[in-house]
Amino acid sequence: MVEYIKDVIWKNGQKVSDFLEQMKANGYQSIELYKAAEIIYKMKKEKAKIFLTFTSNLGTSGLRGLFAQLIKLGLADIIVTTAGALEEDIMKSIGEKFLITRFNADDIALHEKGHNRVGNIAITTDTYQKFEGFIIPILEKIAKEKKSLTTSELIYEIGKNLKDNNSFIRQAYLKKVPIHCPSIIDGSIGFQLYFVKQKHPEFNIDIISDFKETMFYTTQDDRKGVIALGGGVSKHFAILSSLISGGMDYAVYITTANATSGSASGATTSEAKSWGKIKDDADSVTVKGDATVLFPLVMFSVLDRLKKEGEI
Amino acid sequence: MVEYIKDVIWKNGQKVSDFLEQMKANGYQSIELYKAAEIIYKMKKEKAKIFLTFTSNLGTSGLRGLFAQLIKLGLADIIVTTAGALEEDIMKSIGEKFLITRFNADDIALHEKGHNRVGNIAITTDTYQKFEGFIIPILEKIAKEKKSLTTSELIYEIGKNLKDNNSFIRQAYLKKVPIHCPSIIDGSIGFQLYFVKQKHPEFNIDIISDFKETMFYTTQDDRKGVIALGGGVSKHFAILSSLISGGMDYAVYITTANATSGSASGATTSEAKSWGKIKDDADSVTVKGDATVLFPLVMFSVLDRLKKEGEI
Amino acid sequence: MVEYIKDVIWKNGQKVSDFLEQMKANGYQSIELYKAAEIIYKMKKEKAKIFLTFTSNLGTSGLRGLFAQLIKLGLADIIVTTAGALEEDIMKSIGEKFLITRFNADDIALHEKGHNRVGNIAITTDTYQKFEGFIIPILEKIAKEKKSLTTSELIYEIGKNLKDNNSFIRQAYLKKVPIHCPSIIDGSIGFQLYFVKQKHPEFNIDIISDFKETMFYTTQDDRKGVIALGGGVSKHFAILSSLISGGMDYAVYITTANATSGSASGATTSEAKSWGKIKDDADSVTVKGDATVLFPLVMFSVLDRLKKEGEI
Amino acid sequence: MVEYIKDVIWKNGQKVSDFLEQMKANGYQSIELYKAAEIIYKMKKEKAKIFLTFTSNLGTSGLRGLFAQLIKLGLADIIVTTAGALEEDIMKSIGEKFLITRFNADDIALHEKGHNRVGNIAITTDTYQKFEGFIIPILEKIAKEKKSLTTSELIYEIGKNLKDNNSFIRQAYLKKVPIHCPSIIDGSIGFQLYFVKQKHPEFNIDIISDFKETMFYTTQDDRKGVIALGGGVSKHFAILSSLISGGMDYAVYITTANATSGSASGATTSEAKSWGKIKDDADSVTVKGDATVLFPLVMFSVLDRLKKEGEI
Repeated sequence: MVEYIKDVIWKNGQKVSDFLEQMKANGYQSIELYKAAEIIYKMKKEKAKIFLTFTSNLGTSGLRGLFAQLIKLGLADIIVTTAGALEEDIMKSIGEKFLITRFNADDIALHEKGHNRVGNIAITTDTYQKFEGFIIPILEKIAKEKKSLTTSELIYEIGKNLKDNNSFIRQAYLKKVPIHCPSIIDGSIGFQLYFVKQKHPEFNIDIISDFKETMFYTTQDDRKGVIALGGGVSKHFAILSSLISGGMDYAVYITTANATSGSASGATTSEAKSWGKIKDDADSVTVKGDATVLFPLVMFSVLDRLKKEGEI
Repeated sequence: MVEYIKDVIWKNGQKVSDFLEQMKANGYQSIELYKAAEIIYKMKKEKAKIFLTFTSNLGTSGLRGLFAQLIKLGLADIIVTTAGALEEDIMKSIGEKFLITRFNADDIALHEKGHNRVGNIAITTDTYQKFEGFIIPILEKIAKEKKSLTTSELIYEIGKNLKDNNSFIRQAYLKKVPIHCPSIIDGSIGFQLYFVKQKHPEFNIDIISDFKETMFYTTQDDRKGVIALGGGVSKHFAILSSLISGGMDYAVYITTANATSGSASGATTSEAKSWGKIKDDADSVTVKGDATVLFPLVMFSVLDRLKKEGEI
Repeated sequence: MVEYIKDVIWKNGQKVSDFLEQMKANGYQSIELYKAAEIIYKMKKEKAKIFLTFTSNLGTSGLRGLFAQLIKLGLADIIVTTAGALEEDIMKSIGEKFLITRFNADDIALHEKGHNRVGNIAITTDTYQKFEGFIIPILEKIAKEKKSLTTSELIYEIGKNLKDNNSFIRQAYLKKVPIHCPSIIDGSIGFQLYFVKQKHPEFNIDIISDFKETMFYTTQDDRKGVIALGGGVSKHFAILSSLISGGMDYAVYITTANATSGSASGATTSEAKSWGKIKDDADSVTVKGDATVLFPLVMFSVLDRLKKEGEI
Repeated sequence: MVEYIKDVIWKNGQKVSDFLEQMKANGYQSIELYKAAEIIYKMKKEKAKIFLTFTSNLGTSGLRGLFAQLIKLGLADIIVTTAGALEEDIMKSIGEKFLITRFNADDIALHEKGHNRVGNIAITTDTYQKFEGFIIPILEKIAKEKKSLTTSELIYEIGKNLKDNNSFIRQAYLKKVPIHCPSIIDGSIGFQLYFVKQKHPEFNIDIISDFKETMFYTTQDDRKGVIALGGGVSKHFAILSSLISGGMDYAVYITTANATSGSASGATTSEAKSWGKIKDDADSVTVKGDATVLFPLVMFSVLDRLKKEGEI
């Protein structure tokens, strides 16, 4: 069916879902964004197992609340992310607040104040210390009980100890949604794991079993989809995980990285088809842009629609 | 006042304006986008003269309808754009439709079908011919009446002949909003102007007077703002135009271009301050991303707010 | 013929041309860059008429010397650029120097010092004043002699008055290479043209005839190629110009702009094929990256090769 | 000292090092690239311990040969990378070849042929099988001998078994340069580790000790520098590692990622200063662009200079 560009017109008090409907025929990334909404909607309707992956900085952003909500509503069945996202989720869960700053802030002045910058967000060194004070006893308790556990088991244990319902780690614990973090040592939590291991030298993170859990999370018979926000190891590990179960049926990438560099972060859903990580006939789209704006825009629209149909 | 990151949470049926409110404290480009909405709101409230500039491809997109609406509602007092945007606005005004295609379409196959691609939009060669059939008699009539006119005068004359209220050229005609197009020959309309000039050798486009009109459009006493969508000559010409009247008081750039290349397209609002094209203390922001999504998102929110306050 | 990736190995004192040879089989943009060298080499060997286009900021950079040299050596037969590039070439020709600064300089401090920033380059306000003092008498003389002239005629007249052999305007004058600047009023020169027109109200820039000159610069029988550095009107106007003579036989784009935004600046050589602006079977490549590094790298290699073969 | 833009001029047969000298005063990324060369030169001259990090796709590219050479020449003292880079280095070491393809290749056709695409490079499924046949016996032997080892110990063992001097894993083995790969399971090698663990359930990768090794690799007394090519976990883990030893004295990032998204991949050297990961007064630069071109360009120049001074 041939489709045509349509004029975008403001109507007073328009809802996000109606806004997205207008994007369908607007052009460029607006069209791709609309496709993303269609594909995520289908993932849920067709009961796909949904892999949600995001980079550390998105855990730093306000999206962490939305991630928690998506888990609660059954729109994320398995998570892959990196250490920073876990840490920042925990920090917020224990009441810490992140400052809004500027991209071109004076970084030497920030350093003197103990403000650690992530784009236009800053986390104080004091917050890191509170995080440390909170997490070390939990890790020590875990290390006493278990000699070896996967990152998803470790994060599950951490989730038990959180009380914030806007925490994705907490919601994942409640909903038994596994969170994998293959590069878990790449952050402050790496220091804390190291301190704990000094006392408990047998203590270990069993990342090989993380691999197993992820690879066998889905079977050939499952429908499966991936929503990858940003790139890096979280994106790649998620799409890799469906390789032996036949590839993803649905895939939505939202990224600022360019395909032209050949990086995994910028790789398109099309490239993943050459590998069989996404099926040849999968519904898939790569949306170029900042996930802090684009992802909630898509999801709010999808959730409205699913709500209307009684799916959530 | 210190501000903090807040969790983004979906609520059923949320409005665009409430969505944007959540972006205020989400992080990265969402924060910049919120600032853009605040600044555009102020432009209108403080009765600034608003320069709206956009690249050709945005005229090709569905945004052209929104541009028309903004002129009608008094949110664009002067326009700078390029030839393609004018042409595509006229094509749509005479009933032509643009096809939705794919970014990675087979361009040789498209060429054979006469589908001229602009990103994921295609314009048929037939549409170009209809455009030509429509515009040549108008240009000939103009050339008979006037030996020399500025691009804004030319576009005003074209606007007289259009009937589509979603045409920004038509709305600009109705509201006496000047549209300047310094590089007007860079498009199909260049061919038509050339054909007309063959019959009327004295006929001329007086771009030097376009310069004068734009530079003297505002005075030191005016408050003035610029909304620049994309880069290129339209963006640069608009910000240049306030140099002698003291620089812009407000500036919002939405662009996908990077500052790292030193190009005018990627230049930030901060860079413009070194030139005095934007005042040192201006409210200004550079938002990185695709204007087809980000601009209507911002504007729908601003318009809702202005409507509520009876400003529009 | 199947080709394979080869290890890149440093050898002491390697030449640029040998370096580029290694890029042929390195991967990602290095491969595209090598293709660019091959295509430009062919343009010259097969006696194509070469359109060279560049954005304003590249005239600001040190590349302006290379542009002059390329004209001298017969590797640029027709130029399309924007006002800033002309101005900066003239400023350097009269002995002005541009400061090296930083991308994240304090723009308000720069403004106070009269340092106008272009990425990590600054042009002083004093330099602008010297430019003005130099150019106004020349423009006045031209305005007295001719009522109306194309931008290429105007620039030719300016070229007569320059003495710097590293000036591309001067070299273009010497070699009778036309330089077109459709948006010539978009810069400081716009002010000067306006001042001159106040004294000589009949004076006019005949951009419609620029269109004619460019469109008829090549015929169906000519082989023709385009080297587009950056995007904007200069790129688009050059590729448009071959539309009626059958499309470019060779095309090299070097740009930092992304295809995903649908902009003319980010449009690929493939997209141009859908329009017939580049032939279906043309040798063409789009290289992603900063032209200040990539373009001289390519050209030094091509020139070495042409020198060896006695072509230059 | 004030520095000025200088014209770039081709001279026949120019060397890479002379080319880079011209970049010093050319503008935009060429200036940043020159700074990168200066900083890397200083790292070596001042006997800094050099962290070299690169993403998976750069191991796929021809740069893997240069990485090996840099280790051999003493310009990389510790490496951080991801699984794909290891795998591709091993594949090449056992004689496998990677095909050159196109960014916009037909991915479904590639899939049918068993050509797995990475940008414009393809790796055949047959190559993956040969890799598997080679690596499994090695991993089994390791698993029999050691119950638990860090990724750097594992990679050292693999290095023993390679014979290709262009292999960075081999050269790292010979020079006792540790290679850390925190996310080692994120690739084909994850499958093989899993197979081996099935037979040897006690076998484990001890990533916590990787953390320890990396963090204590340098002390406060060491001068230390980082060269980060691309982003992701390899970049972040390397800069994190100097946090407790006082931050990097030198830092060069070469990346295509944008700072505007707040991602670790796009984070600038300036941002790292706010964290103390790079010292306030460090020599540091962020170069925007494709490392396949920019990194060898910089290194060839640095190596020429060091050779001349008898440093290598």
